[in-house]
Amino acid sequence: MYLSHRILCLVLILAGVASSAFAGVPPGVTNDSVAARLLETGLRSCESFDMLKELTRKAPHRLSGSSGAAKAVELTKEMMVRRGFDKVHLEQVMVPHWVRGFVEEAMITRSATKKGVPLTICGLGGSIATPKQGIEGEVIEVKSFDELRSLGAVAKNKIVFFNRPFDPTKLNTFEAYGGAVDQRGKGAAEAAMVGGIAALVRSMTLAIDDVPHAGAMSYVDSVKKVPAAAISTTDADMLSKLLAQEKNIKVKMNLTCQKLPDVQSANVVGEITGSEKPGEVVVVGGHLDCWDKGQGAHDDGSGCVQAIEVLNLIKKLGLRPKRTIRAVMFMNEENGSRGGKAYPLAPEREGEKHIAAIESDRGGFAPRGISVQADSTVLRKVQQWLPIFKHLDAGQIEPGYSGVDVFPTVETGVAGFGLDVENQRYFDYHHSDNDTIDKVNRRELELGAIVEAMLCYLISEEGL
Amino acid sequence: MYLSHRILCLVLILAGVASSAFAGVPPGVTNDSVAARLLETGLRSCESFDMLKELTRKAPHRLSGSSGAAKAVELTKEMMVRRGFDKVHLEQVMVPHWVRGFVEEAMITRSATKKGVPLTICGLGGSIATPKQGIEGEVIEVKSFDELRSLGAVAKNKIVFFNRPFDPTKLNTFEAYGGAVDQRGKGAAEAAMVGGIAALVRSMTLAIDDVPHAGAMSYVDSVKKVPAAAISTTDADMLSKLLAQEKNIKVKMNLTCQKLPDVQSANVVGEITGSEKPGEVVVVGGHLDCWDKGQGAHDDGSGCVQAIEVLNLIKKLGLRPKRTIRAVMFMNEENGSRGGKAYPLAPEREGEKHIAAIESDRGGFAPRGISVQADSTVLRKVQQWLPIFKHLDAGQIEPGYSGVDVFPTVETGVAGFGLDVENQRYFDYHHSDNDTIDKVNRRELELGAIVEAMLCYLISEEGL
Repeated sequence: MYLSHRILCLVLILAGVASSAFAGVPPGVTNDSVAARLLETGLRSCESFDMLKELTRKAPHRLSGSSGAAKAVELTKEMMVRRGFDKVHLEQVMVPHWVRGFVEEAMITRSATKKGVPLTICGLGGSIATPKQGIEGEVIEVKSFDELRSLGAVAKNKIVFFNRPFDPTKLNTFEAYGGAVDQRGKGAAEAAMVGGIAALVRSMTLAIDDVPHAGAMSYVDSVKKVPAAAISTTDADMLSKLLAQEKNIKVKMNLTCQKLPDVQSANVVGEITGSEKPGEVVVVGGHLDCWDKGQGAHDDGSGCVQAIEVLNLIKKLGLRPKRTIRAVMFMNEENGSRGGKAYPLAPEREGEKHIAAIESDRGGFAPRGISVQADSTVLRKVQQWLPIFKHLDAGQIEPGYSGVDVFPTVETGVAGFGLDVENQRYFDYHHSDNDTIDKVNRRELELGAIVEAMLCYLISEEGL
Repeated sequence: MYLSHRILCLVLILAGVASSAFAGVPPGVTNDSVAARLLETGLRSCESFDMLKELTRKAPHRLSGSSGAAKAVELTKEMMVRRGFDKVHLEQVMVPHWVRGFVEEAMITRSATKKGVPLTICGLGGSIATPKQGIEGEVIEVKSFDELRSLGAVAKNKIVFFNRPFDPTKLNTFEAYGGAVDQRGKGAAEAAMVGGIAALVRSMTLAIDDVPHAGAMSYVDSVKKVPAAAISTTDADMLSKLLAQEKNIKVKMNLTCQKLPDVQSANVVGEITGSEKPGEVVVVGGHLDCWDKGQGAHDDGSGCVQAIEVLNLIKKLGLRPKRTIRAVMFMNEENGSRGGKAYPLAPEREGEKHIAAIESDRGGFAPRGISVQADSTVLRKVQQWLPIFKHLDAGQIEPGYSGVDVFPTVETGVAGFGLDVENQRYFDYHHSDNDTIDKVNRRELELGAIVEAMLCYLISEEGL
């Protein structure tokens, strides 16, 4: 056995056949050659960018329940059909339907002799409207919930202005976001708890500009609902300065947003069915919904078209992956995660075993590596592929988070992965009018797809 | 000795003093703590970006010999003086003085019945003017010098159109640039050698847009000088398609650029003089001149303000580096490298010993690491600092090139280093109207300065 194996090896080596031939892979197909061909094929056409252009042009606003979201479902399904993927289908999911009102206004109102100063705001997703005539109150500025609570009765009948900025000293901007986003999510409830009548929240960004950033907020059942809006960082700074100079600064705010009944929508699913183990699945995705500001180009049109491009590249290379590689456009990440939650529970999952769940939802920027949300055995296994990912300029393979949409799948015991990208610019665009296609570089976007394709292929061929 | 050393260690450890205290560094100053403080101090203010704003606003056009370049010399000197650097001074250098003409026009001229089609071009730096009435000729397209030479007499009296694009499959865009830039540098001479009357060169970029990219070209003494211009990539593609469809396509081109006598200019130099070994120097720099298109924001305003910020950060932290850390704004990288060549030969170098020469000239993008142009001993030494640079998200320390300006210093046996940055976007902006301050992210720019500051500090303290 030993000897004959050695002779076989020798014969194969002499024949120029790579050792991966033992695993049933066509002669000459090595992981390195796949990486090189993915890079060449991907960078030559950058098809992910063409898809993103189409998506952002035809369905720029894709908030759950909107006609834009419905159009995006049809469009990405069509993109997958056009590329000849297997089993392209929709998986139904009911989603919330919050709509921004036509009126979104705020104004600093001072004593009768002084002119009002308009503020650039946008309603936060999930907020109730103000009364028709608007809501007016004195403004009180706080930097934290603790500070607010310590004020007690002082905040009663006031508009609470949450103005704690991102910590600029955090190298990772997601950390800075994590340190500020409680204000957006829970500010309204916290304000109401001390008798406040509305919440005005500094936009979640490191940029100082006049563009408000949308995003989700939620209420607490036992607490009165009060309206909540984001204010641009320039206006937050201006308001803060005014508050330091003058007493009794008032703001009048008017929002006509509303929550409508839930709507039927869908996750969009397509795959390359595995050639040897079709029931074992590597899923890769992004979320198709986005806020109704900008075009959701980085967040997360990028992750969606990259997932399609993963399958597209593998098909273009003529590879026949052993396990199923599946692209999913998840619906409703932004305000409910219904798609992500529905996926592992869907009847279509019957008889399937998921091996890995991969998400790209940190923008279509240049990839830096992969964060691994799995046990140390998986981490070590993936780190063995480090030289390949270094070759793709994405050599940081470290423990970390996967993604909001795949997390419910990861929670069932599946190894999770998040595409890690250069993150300094992300929150300049995130949830705002700035998140448009011109902020995406076609090669950076495509490189992310290439890295994901390589990861999917490796997991499909070698397991975890 | 052994015992007493152990006791001393123990005492110091008990006193909470880091081991670097042995090297005369103030108690508590470890490399890790310096890295953390550089990050915190730098990201909090991002002063490099404020400097770049000032530079690009007050001196956007800084081609050697221009009034903008002279203004930039005064301005960056003033920036260093204002920040209290040591020995801020100018080192004179004579530079070439080529000026773009008011007229830069090209037009496709076909048979009398068809309308002319204007082309977006810009004269290449160093080109002669066309005759006053312009130059007109049939166009012949080639992809390489070999192809041109093989055509022989066919190219005679024609305008040679060099249209070999960047190879998009190269992951590193500098490699793609390297594979195409011969057309810009030597196209005119090659055209003239086969009797061509002018060179029209596809812009050096991966972007497909209507913005021509300037850059240097040079003549060969024994060959006739013919004018040379860059054409935008959209017009290059359009012209190429027309040439495939129609015969006898002519272009008429008019350039009024000229070469004036050399002008006196200067490298701008400032330092923090070493506290222990003032004669040993770590130099860090970028080039102050840039093309007269855009604002030279990435190329290389970024490298200049980063070098100033290196010293600024070290001062802000209250560090007293052992060796001298010197910032140099080199003059005339773009069309002569006179500043870079003059630096190691200047009388001021007398009695100085250079330990390292560091350059940032790949744009103000997010840093990825450091390329090391030195022997393997130096490489190993610097790679020992890998954990620190990983902490700064710049963990790729690999053999590579330093920079055009420091290269003459490196050639004298000094270890060279280049700041390595995310490079996908660089050639979209390079030498064109697109290279403006809005393409620079303040945090990415500052991170580059922080990485350089850390490298300067480590070399200053620990030598190489």
